[in-house]
Amino acid sequence: MKINGERLCSDILELGQIGFQEGQGTSRPAYSEAFCAGRELVRRKMEQAGLKTAVDAVGNLTGCLPGRSGRIIAVGSHIDTVPNGGMYDGAYGVLAGIEAVRTLRESGYTPRDSIEIIAFNEEEGNVVGGTFGSKAFAGQPQEADALERAAALGIRPEGIQASKRNGRDYRCYLELHIEQGGILAREQIPAGIVDGIVGIARYQVTVTGEANHAGSTPMDMRDDALLHACRLIERMAAISIETDREMTCTVGRLSVEPGAVNVVPGRARFPIELRSLRMEHIEQAISRFCGEAVRPGVTVEQFLRQEPTIMDPALVRVLEDACRTCGLPFRHMPSGAGHDAINMALMTPTAMLFIPSAGGISHSIREYSRPEDLAAGAQVLLETLAALAQSKEGGFSR
Amino acid sequence: MKINGERLCSDILELGQIGFQEGQGTSRPAYSEAFCAGRELVRRKMEQAGLKTAVDAVGNLTGCLPGRSGRIIAVGSHIDTVPNGGMYDGAYGVLAGIEAVRTLRESGYTPRDSIEIIAFNEEEGNVVGGTFGSKAFAGQPQEADALERAAALGIRPEGIQASKRNGRDYRCYLELHIEQGGILAREQIPAGIVDGIVGIARYQVTVTGEANHAGSTPMDMRDDALLHACRLIERMAAISIETDREMTCTVGRLSVEPGAVNVVPGRARFPIELRSLRMEHIEQAISRFCGEAVRPGVTVEQFLRQEPTIMDPALVRVLEDACRTCGLPFRHMPSGAGHDAINMALMTPTAMLFIPSAGGISHSIREYSRPEDLAAGAQVLLETLAALAQSKEGGFSR
Repeated sequence: MKINGERLCSDILELGQIGFQEGQGTSRPAYSEAFCAGRELVRRKMEQAGLKTAVDAVGNLTGCLPGRSGRIIAVGSHIDTVPNGGMYDGAYGVLAGIEAVRTLRESGYTPRDSIEIIAFNEEEGNVVGGTFGSKAFAGQPQEADALERAAALGIRPEGIQASKRNGRDYRCYLELHIEQGGILAREQIPAGIVDGIVGIARYQVTVTGEANHAGSTPMDMRDDALLHACRLIERMAAISIETDREMTCTVGRLSVEPGAVNVVPGRARFPIELRSLRMEHIEQAISRFCGEAVRPGVTVEQFLRQEPTIMDPALVRVLEDACRTCGLPFRHMPSGAGHDAINMALMTPTAMLFIPSAGGISHSIREYSRPEDLAAGAQVLLETLAALAQSKEGGFSR
Repeated sequence: MKINGERLCSDILELGQIGFQEGQGTSRPAYSEAFCAGRELVRRKMEQAGLKTAVDAVGNLTGCLPGRSGRIIAVGSHIDTVPNGGMYDGAYGVLAGIEAVRTLRESGYTPRDSIEIIAFNEEEGNVVGGTFGSKAFAGQPQEADALERAAALGIRPEGIQASKRNGRDYRCYLELHIEQGGILAREQIPAGIVDGIVGIARYQVTVTGEANHAGSTPMDMRDDALLHACRLIERMAAISIETDREMTCTVGRLSVEPGAVNVVPGRARFPIELRSLRMEHIEQAISRFCGEAVRPGVTVEQFLRQEPTIMDPALVRVLEDACRTCGLPFRHMPSGAGHDAINMALMTPTAMLFIPSAGGISHSIREYSRPEDLAAGAQVLLETLAALAQSKEGGFSR
């Protein structure tokens, strides 16, 4: 069985045109006109592939190829985009799922387990809240402000409740996605098997020095909060690399008070964000940092902690075997970005496969993946579905 | 002859109450009600000391003790304050001048040269523009936006023009001021003879990296503009100290784009301000910095250059001698802050004397100078006036 790469690419381009603006990118935020038009296109393609479609109360679209076992293998991703995003983020996983099912049916395959292709709504969080659709699908609690924003769109708590699926009906969830980073492209490896989605911790650092006159305060009499913050930012980056080469450490903001060109900074504030598959590495790094940094005038306060999501080991092995069957080189890697798979993993065994993003660019009109990589990823998905069809029920650990 | 330190301190406290708010400080910005009330108090004190007072069109107050020679020895500073400022900045120099003249008259001294005490308006630049009053007094060009703001207050160009004095009428200008820095207090030296007021250069640095996803971009694939900016800020500080220990280097602001906690910074911008008595040291430091820093993605652009003001060497020697006469230890030092003396030096030979500021604190309710230091500075001023009375006309170089 071979998927049709040209057909897949043509589907991606067709969906990518909906919400596209020349020179800007594709804008298909959840609940927008463009989003609804895009979802309608995907629904038609699902129907043409022989899937039975439905849209739930939060706007998730599913297309089901019914099987005999009464259990469901789910394949999905999202079809909303950030404003001025690309054509591949999310859309690829959904359309590759449809292409895989199309190929299965064209090959005369009748599934034992139902295969459900899911096009989640509002993964990006530009409108209601990040992964709002898959949170509802998996019955995960929503943030209070997400519920408020949903209510403003006419989505009532009962609807969110009704969108919840029963985990016992599902055998597993597979998500195919562009990497959105540059590791696969740099290493010229066409497939990345995701070990897990990183945990995230965020800390607010406040450095208090002494604001002073820039002219009358000699260098050796200053307590310059910005200069001190600069040293701390560099140290934190170095500590994170020394602790775990795969950890990321980001300082994305910095405020300086009083903020005048001719006043020695009296205060600097910045958030540190650490991401790693291993929460203990994050804790190790931040406590080493605090050991060096915290002194009178410096405070470090955690304001977010999000546990990592570890992929199902048995399902990861099925993905490995499928890559080998396709003759496709692969590597293991963490996902540094969040995905709908975070919520699905709380409901059913879950795994993800990445394909290369040119230049590691995403959320941009310049987002691009090569046709051969798109096709190869879809082929691995097809082989995975075929392997799951042959494997014994219950072959996946929770 | 001995000045009356208690009377001087009582004058300072009395003026300091005008515009004072408990827990906040003294707020007497130019042209405010409080400023006018403060100026009226100073005018009365001048009149009581036997001075003939006048207020010019820009709000400068002068009090003159007429002499026989037709030439003027000017002594002054300003009586406006920053919002929530202290009681000493500016006010000290004016009131010490009045105290010195009072003492001269009480001692039966009749001046050969006229002695003019000047209370400049709007030195701080909170309302119209920095040293607006002394710029008008010395006939220096005003900034276009200062002229606009002045016009909004009803001050017309003709009035500014009419406030200009003739430099040929003046023999010299002396300004007594609190240091506003912490050098004298740290070294426990009661007097600082100012060699000059530092030149200032400001440069805008822009660092362009690549904005990227904080999760999916590994540390070794980042071009993090903030991390790079931190290194540059530290390098510039180190270079300035290596070039000239008295140079100051300040980065008082920093902006990061896009400025999100989970996005690797794509751009960072900050101004560098360098101050030194020697412009060539500033140029040396910035060109060394540019040699190290400038590469694709980093630009350094000068946006301000203000030449240093060198004090009159002969007048500096008179101040040294006056300190010795008073038995007062002194050191030479630059003024890192700007003063009305910058404009006066363009009109007549000028010198400045600093006294210690406790903790180097200024522009704050915590601004403080000890009564003995205030009295000692005024005594030096008195001795200087006495010496000038004895010296031959024309003893000062321009």
